[in-house]
Amino acid sequence: MSAQSNPGTPVVRPPESRAEAEALDRLDPLSTARERYSLPPGIVYLCGNSLGAMPFGAARRAREVVEREWGEDLIRSWNVHDWFGLPERVGARIARLIGAQPDEVVVADSTSINLYKAVNAALGLQPGRRVIVAETGNFPTNAYVLQGLAARQGEAPVVRAVDRAGVPGAIDTDTAVVVLTHVHYRDCAAFDLAGITARAHEAGALVVWDLSHSVGVLPLGLDAARADFAVGCTYKYLGGGPGSPAFIYAAGRHHPRLEPGLPGWWGHVAPFALREDWDPAAGIRRLLTGTPSIIALSVLDAALDEFEPVAVEALHAKGRGLVAAFMDLARRRCVQHGVGVATPDDPARRGSHVALRHAHGYEIMQALIARGVIGDFRTPDVMRFGLAPLYVRYVDVWDAVEHLVAVLDSGEWQDPRYAARSRVT
Amino acid sequence: MSAQSNPGTPVVRPPESRAEAEALDRLDPLSTARERYSLPPGIVYLCGNSLGAMPFGAARRAREVVEREWGEDLIRSWNVHDWFGLPERVGARIARLIGAQPDEVVVADSTSINLYKAVNAALGLQPGRRVIVAETGNFPTNAYVLQGLAARQGEAPVVRAVDRAGVPGAIDTDTAVVVLTHVHYRDCAAFDLAGITARAHEAGALVVWDLSHSVGVLPLGLDAARADFAVGCTYKYLGGGPGSPAFIYAAGRHHPRLEPGLPGWWGHVAPFALREDWDPAAGIRRLLTGTPSIIALSVLDAALDEFEPVAVEALHAKGRGLVAAFMDLARRRCVQHGVGVATPDDPARRGSHVALRHAHGYEIMQALIARGVIGDFRTPDVMRFGLAPLYVRYVDVWDAVEHLVAVLDSGEWQDPRYAARSRVT
Repeated sequence: MSAQSNPGTPVVRPPESRAEAEALDRLDPLSTARERYSLPPGIVYLCGNSLGAMPFGAARRAREVVEREWGEDLIRSWNVHDWFGLPERVGARIARLIGAQPDEVVVADSTSINLYKAVNAALGLQPGRRVIVAETGNFPTNAYVLQGLAARQGEAPVVRAVDRAGVPGAIDTDTAVVVLTHVHYRDCAAFDLAGITARAHEAGALVVWDLSHSVGVLPLGLDAARADFAVGCTYKYLGGGPGSPAFIYAAGRHHPRLEPGLPGWWGHVAPFALREDWDPAAGIRRLLTGTPSIIALSVLDAALDEFEPVAVEALHAKGRGLVAAFMDLARRRCVQHGVGVATPDDPARRGSHVALRHAHGYEIMQALIARGVIGDFRTPDVMRFGLAPLYVRYVDVWDAVEHLVAVLDSGEWQDPRYAARSRVT
Repeated sequence: MSAQSNPGTPVVRPPESRAEAEALDRLDPLSTARERYSLPPGIVYLCGNSLGAMPFGAARRAREVVEREWGEDLIRSWNVHDWFGLPERVGARIARLIGAQPDEVVVADSTSINLYKAVNAALGLQPGRRVIVAETGNFPTNAYVLQGLAARQGEAPVVRAVDRAGVPGAIDTDTAVVVLTHVHYRDCAAFDLAGITARAHEAGALVVWDLSHSVGVLPLGLDAARADFAVGCTYKYLGGGPGSPAFIYAAGRHHPRLEPGLPGWWGHVAPFALREDWDPAAGIRRLLTGTPSIIALSVLDAALDEFEPVAVEALHAKGRGLVAAFMDLARRRCVQHGVGVATPDDPARRGSHVALRHAHGYEIMQALIARGVIGDFRTPDVMRFGLAPLYVRYVDVWDAVEHLVAVLDSGEWQDPRYAARSRVT
């Protein structure tokens, strides 16, 4: 926990040469993890914050669940392989990564659906309060979910969306729920999770955290912070595969009164009794709705094997070192080309990607991708470089910045083929 | 469509011997499909109404999407393999099977979540009406979804649940939405989809059909019936794999005013513009919410390849023949043992599984499973035998009834090892 208690201390000194980057990789206690991921040769993959790379174990597990469990054991797999227990089993593994108890997390549905459930459940615990405090300018799907809740007839909630700095001041005694994304998808800034939670509780409000860009890279300590609810993606740093199911956390103290508003048979106390009346399961399972993809859950389960032997603090230390190195190199070598560093300096207030701003960020990123350095671009001007601690090396950071400098020096980003904006980046 | 216009005519005469069953299989125009499914030797698999068997093509596609698209092409697959378009592409293939236009169906989320969206959207089109008419005693997850909607504060809907016979009479001018499962999960009885839809429209009501036990086995003709909304499972007769994502249909005429109530970025008119305000896509895509499992969608897509060369009428004709044969054999050989046939006689009013009732149905099914005949049991006394047209043969029907007669004759179901009820059957 020293990383948290002394956030100003750099974990390693940023490399000043490729040889120094190589030396840092040799010292990296997580260096052996990389060989268990599929990383095509010649590619510097810095998109683990968007779609995590594939652990070979996940591919093996996909074959097993499809070809053996489904193909051979068929319907019997519900019992033999306990498919029914997968949402809780996988949830319990994520619980460790977010500082929760094993029975406080369950996995199914998408992050958006889970956000709906969490906010709806939180509102249900706050009779007489209708205001939802949220941040403007964060990932908008969360705003859409809140707008959907607010569009209800009758006693609908009211969304009070303010900018990041205004969030603490916007929480008052009429606030029902504070809904925040912990790490910002663009600039990588992280809220003070424990501080905001405490501030909300003082005002009698509850908090729902979206941990999509935090889980697997930061120590989160949800229970220690007395957090209420959280949701998050599993296809980013956790590497669960494209569109893998999301998780939802609810503090154990809230379980007895939770009503997520999207009931379905997987959340029933006795799903196979097939009773007519909704009677939710006693614990976290009541946050489930319908049948989740068993294939997707199994692949995610296998992807989490890579996290099993690793302490969250070790992930954080490695990620901090990579981010610090990338930021340092970008500052030293790219600022003169009009590149701005958006990711915050304070290691305690950021996630694990580096956000660089440039008016021609889109074109520059296309030129980098053509050179095999895969990051992504977010409107209007942000180039993102995700630094997944389990498989990104210091030499990858070094090489990425080398290529970036070359693209800027040569002006090759001005090639017309980089100008057309594709739909998905 | 002759099967529909003349529902009393049996498609084939039920076999009176195993040799006759073999002869029927030789005449079956769908007989070559079976070899493309994984069906372990020695097993008679009659659970395709619960978990469809695995097409080998689905396993190949699983390897491809995991190992090549995710593992090698990584984030670039969103563009290169158009992952983003999968919900619509797969939806368009299901559209043909339910008699809809390609742009009226989309695939994502679970059946329960889609039912919530469909009912919520239908309610939004019916200002001033609050009553939902539903059937009691059908699959209860749908009842839970409706109870969840009715538990809302303010102008919440009121659920009027009546038994099957009472449904037409319960629809009146205060009915907002009729929500029905087309084919019953227990006894396999089918509602008159076109007739109920017309009756509802006369009263100014809309209808949401759950087609989970209908799709892939019955001609449904949604557009011809001027249906409003539908949802359904894809892991049953369609063979999309355990927990594969569900579909949702909305008639094109409703699209401009649809507000499903679970907005998310996948349903936005411009997902990657990352705008703050909810502005739904123009068409069926507005029924999407968050990121679906790309692996699960791809596997389902491959499973649908098996349906591509087949007319819905051919699926129906084969299924009708199998059901008629099973019912005929059960009547002739099992009734004297206290077995009742619950599946309706009228081929136009049933799906594609046979439901047999027996006070010791649970134990009898366990004894059958021990013999390699895999059906399932539903409380309190129903044995189900799913007859998937693409891979169940007449000899499977013959052999299943032979084993059933042997279990009943010998009394082997009374063996104590068949008495313990497992959680999932």
